[in-house]
Amino acid sequence: MKRIAILTSGGDAPGMNAAIRAVTRKAIYDGLEVYGINYGFAGLVAGDIRKLEIADVGDKVQRGGTFLYSARYPEFATVEGQLKGIEQLKKFGIEGLVVIGGDGSYHGAMALTKHGFPAVGIPGTIDNDIPGTDFTIGFDTAINTVLESIDRIRDTATSHVRTFIIEVMGRNAGDIALWAGVAGGADDIIIPEHEFDMASVAKKIKEGRDRGKKHCLIVLAEGVMGGNDFADKLAEYGDFHARVSVLGHVVRGGSPSARDRVLASKFGWKAVELLKENKGGLCIGIRDNEIVATDIVDTLENGKHHPDLSLYTLNQEISF
Amino acid sequence: MKRIAILTSGGDAPGMNAAIRAVTRKAIYDGLEVYGINYGFAGLVAGDIRKLEIADVGDKVQRGGTFLYSARYPEFATVEGQLKGIEQLKKFGIEGLVVIGGDGSYHGAMALTKHGFPAVGIPGTIDNDIPGTDFTIGFDTAINTVLESIDRIRDTATSHVRTFIIEVMGRNAGDIALWAGVAGGADDIIIPEHEFDMASVAKKIKEGRDRGKKHCLIVLAEGVMGGNDFADKLAEYGDFHARVSVLGHVVRGGSPSARDRVLASKFGWKAVELLKENKGGLCIGIRDNEIVATDIVDTLENGKHHPDLSLYTLNQEISF
Amino acid sequence: MKRIAILTSGGDAPGMNAAIRAVTRKAIYDGLEVYGINYGFAGLVAGDIRKLEIADVGDKVQRGGTFLYSARYPEFATVEGQLKGIEQLKKFGIEGLVVIGGDGSYHGAMALTKHGFPAVGIPGTIDNDIPGTDFTIGFDTAINTVLESIDRIRDTATSHVRTFIIEVMGRNAGDIALWAGVAGGADDIIIPEHEFDMASVAKKIKEGRDRGKKHCLIVLAEGVMGGNDFADKLAEYGDFHARVSVLGHVVRGGSPSARDRVLASKFGWKAVELLKENKGGLCIGIRDNEIVATDIVDTLENGKHHPDLSLYTLNQEISF
Amino acid sequence: MKRIAILTSGGDAPGMNAAIRAVTRKAIYDGLEVYGINYGFAGLVAGDIRKLEIADVGDKVQRGGTFLYSARYPEFATVEGQLKGIEQLKKFGIEGLVVIGGDGSYHGAMALTKHGFPAVGIPGTIDNDIPGTDFTIGFDTAINTVLESIDRIRDTATSHVRTFIIEVMGRNAGDIALWAGVAGGADDIIIPEHEFDMASVAKKIKEGRDRGKKHCLIVLAEGVMGGNDFADKLAEYGDFHARVSVLGHVVRGGSPSARDRVLASKFGWKAVELLKENKGGLCIGIRDNEIVATDIVDTLENGKHHPDLSLYTLNQEISF
Repeated sequence: MKRIAILTSGGDAPGMNAAIRAVTRKAIYDGLEVYGINYGFAGLVAGDIRKLEIADVGDKVQRGGTFLYSARYPEFATVEGQLKGIEQLKKFGIEGLVVIGGDGSYHGAMALTKHGFPAVGIPGTIDNDIPGTDFTIGFDTAINTVLESIDRIRDTATSHVRTFIIEVMGRNAGDIALWAGVAGGADDIIIPEHEFDMASVAKKIKEGRDRGKKHCLIVLAEGVMGGNDFADKLAEYGDFHARVSVLGHVVRGGSPSARDRVLASKFGWKAVELLKENKGGLCIGIRDNEIVATDIVDTLENGKHHPDLSLYTLNQEISF
Repeated sequence: MKRIAILTSGGDAPGMNAAIRAVTRKAIYDGLEVYGINYGFAGLVAGDIRKLEIADVGDKVQRGGTFLYSARYPEFATVEGQLKGIEQLKKFGIEGLVVIGGDGSYHGAMALTKHGFPAVGIPGTIDNDIPGTDFTIGFDTAINTVLESIDRIRDTATSHVRTFIIEVMGRNAGDIALWAGVAGGADDIIIPEHEFDMASVAKKIKEGRDRGKKHCLIVLAEGVMGGNDFADKLAEYGDFHARVSVLGHVVRGGSPSARDRVLASKFGWKAVELLKENKGGLCIGIRDNEIVATDIVDTLENGKHHPDLSLYTLNQEISF
Repeated sequence: MKRIAILTSGGDAPGMNAAIRAVTRKAIYDGLEVYGINYGFAGLVAGDIRKLEIADVGDKVQRGGTFLYSARYPEFATVEGQLKGIEQLKKFGIEGLVVIGGDGSYHGAMALTKHGFPAVGIPGTIDNDIPGTDFTIGFDTAINTVLESIDRIRDTATSHVRTFIIEVMGRNAGDIALWAGVAGGADDIIIPEHEFDMASVAKKIKEGRDRGKKHCLIVLAEGVMGGNDFADKLAEYGDFHARVSVLGHVVRGGSPSARDRVLASKFGWKAVELLKENKGGLCIGIRDNEIVATDIVDTLENGKHHPDLSLYTLNQEISF
Repeated sequence: MKRIAILTSGGDAPGMNAAIRAVTRKAIYDGLEVYGINYGFAGLVAGDIRKLEIADVGDKVQRGGTFLYSARYPEFATVEGQLKGIEQLKKFGIEGLVVIGGDGSYHGAMALTKHGFPAVGIPGTIDNDIPGTDFTIGFDTAINTVLESIDRIRDTATSHVRTFIIEVMGRNAGDIALWAGVAGGADDIIIPEHEFDMASVAKKIKEGRDRGKKHCLIVLAEGVMGGNDFADKLAEYGDFHARVSVLGHVVRGGSPSARDRVLASKFGWKAVELLKENKGGLCIGIRDNEIVATDIVDTLENGKHHPDLSLYTLNQEISF
């Protein structure tokens, strides 16, 4: 393979630029040519494609977002869209594709694979909800951003002896809530993967107060319910005057953390290693601290993301 | 005067601890005794009062919130509550009081003054909406916190070529929106102190897009309307798919900025200078870069806070 | 005047990009054309000049450094160099110049003025050592960066019950040390503008220790002496085992603070206001919270920068 | 075991407080009593020991440093010192000890173990140079702090088209340099574990310049040599005018990152799990993303820390 391309798709995640940089530089290092596709699969179908040189990825490793832009493009779910995309790739002489993104992006990569075009997926989403990897690009930055907010809210909660419900992103996954909750010393963490009992939540708040605890912080994954709904239901168990803070889009951006940049660099490097040996149909991940590549069809169809539920138990035993 | 006390009241603001520290240390330096009152006016009435020593304010200058705690206490609006407070102060032999807080706190200090008890107000609120001063403690930190969020949101907005409505705190004042908006390069800033025309907002977004601009950020002061309402109204003028981000309580906490700590230190120092000369009934401020003290009754009754509206014009001429 | 140019010169400072953006956008808003000159006066003489459009300054307000680059260029002190520069400006049809920088840059602007070419200076340096203004662009960011480091060092100093000497930038000015020192709760601040007595410094450290104080932080302006020299001299007065931390170039970069971006925007806007009325030979500043313009020759020849020495006294009375 | 104690020893590291909190809360959750020992082994021998309650570790998870203080205490290398320490522990009825720290601390724990007193080591140091674990508490925070500085320096380096040598901590280990270097997009990373050739370093800088690269950043582990020495040697190969930035003690402090807090919490929890089953003589670590406990004598005598040298190769292939 002598010419590859790269695109980012789905929600942006800090570290995507570091991955694009790694793919570009590693490919050039190995004598390949690299093309960047703007706006994800939409740009692929539209042919919004240009060659990337060494300097194009300079001064990018530290930037949030994705300089190749991203876009939703449901049309790529159709065979027609997919074939049009492959046509464009062939027009540019491109023989392999790196797709950075989340679940939907992986399905695009899988479709190309099924049509015989070698594609490699790199997991990039703040939600950490992709099978085949313990961690996705952007997750580490996101939990640190959430954590900063929790630390700020603790100041106010303590000053006013208040209870706060902090709703965090994560779609259907509780990873962000779990990690940021443990790190933030949350009194309770409510996630989709573990049932909870509102009466127990209320009991814990009361016990803390009776003991003289100044603040109470509850970290709630958006996949369970909204923060205001939670506060309403909690109010049925006592007069907690809980404040609600919804941490929305601010959590997606920002300069990536050290770990996200290193992970993104490793993933990008690995993607080129695979493609230059004509290996496609794979998705890259980190498992037990090792970079791995697994079959993308098998991973998407049979894989499942498992949050680290030991953190749930841990939190119950150290945060009260 | 040989013994003074200090309390924080109303919403917490970063830098309050730096002010408490300055009052405490300066008073001790000048040979006075200092007492800390917990939970604002509620604690005053309840007699939750203790002596502060040098070490009690050590390692506090950098902390957000207020280590004397704060509380709402509408009962202090009654003469009965006020007299009870003065009784407590006298019981502890306290001859003067420093009140750090916002509008409501100033009213408490004014009431004590009217009853003949020397009180000095220090403006502490992130909203910057206090008469008698150009800047309040906490405002500088708050605009930097908002700015960080705007910078993060820009990453996502640019990556997805999107419009964002960013609702920021400020109660009825537009200061946070103005400063953070100019600093964040907002395309438009919507504040209570200046009318706006939704059709012009929509026109500006369209022109930016037509020119190839990737992101559009609108910073909206909560005093105008909620972010979702704004997005709904904007939608009547075109299909902007604007995302809304509400920056809530996260903006109140956090370690204070350099400027807030310096300002708080100067305010605290000045308060002691005044009280030790038996001067009460005053509120402290910074005007044209100079520390001033004005009559608290006159300031509250006739003063008015004026946001820097030159920033509004400025933004229209440099942000498009 | 229909066509102006802008350059940055001397050490970079956070907020320079915000100023370039403001000049560019405001000029375009007012119907002027704007040219950017790369590498300061070196680029001016070499003719490294290009037109700036609206989009060239997009996504720049938040970036540290200067995207027009900067350079030392002592040759511009010669009349020959200056005339060559004016020749280049005329070749491009440029009628006025904005120079952002420190002391040396102002001298370049003054020289052009003396040759009859309208130039306006904007104070941009982290050192805050420019006459004609209370604050320079970059100073607020720099003191916050220094403050972050002081806060970190306090963790270690407290954990190990240690004394730290923290040497900070500022050339011959003590502003950074004064502001960051007060904000950081420094036990002592050593600046060129105020004499100090090592025996008193040592005495203060000992008294703190005897009282049980865990950490001792001394903030030292580089204009006084180096941190290691200071520690050596201090050691003559007792066995303090003081650690030295030199905060060097890290203090110059980084995303500008809210205040620096607002100040830079105001300065840039003002520069265009002046030039479009053919007013040159001026330097811009903020005095008593108001944007002002003063004669550049007079300011450089007769003006003097005065640090806020009230902070020195303040610190002695609140930090012990 | 019904009563355990905890101490921190050696250089402080962000996350130590989170570990102390986890040990304390988990122990109380499991019905044990916990004692905190101030000033490490020095405090142990001196009997500076006190009971820790739930509230003593509240509001601590986010703080840098160690609230139990730390100290160097070479006397604990003697049998006499060790027996004195055990005597103190027995006096307080303490049956097991958790030691958080680096290499030297582990040797203290090992000594206690050899004398028959159950001790468990938790790896806490920013240097990441402890055998038996892939990551130590504090390392993740430290690389993010270094990274922030690299990002700042890049602003200045780019603005002035300069080469910077950035010397980072790590004692004899290259981990901080490797991770922060890859994350920061360093042109070269110089570590003790891999030889380097100054001529090649110089060649790379020249090639970058010839290609138009604006900045060149070289991250140097202090274990190789000092930054100024490196710059001197580099100068023999060309006129690079390299600036040197030494990131010293600022890297040790600061609020711990999400990952460090989670890791610290897991380590602390595990330590109590072991001690309550009377298992001592162990050190805790994370290996391949799993929490493990290994024999402390064997680990110290036969174990060896291996930095992730794949990062070295990676960097050479993606950073140029």
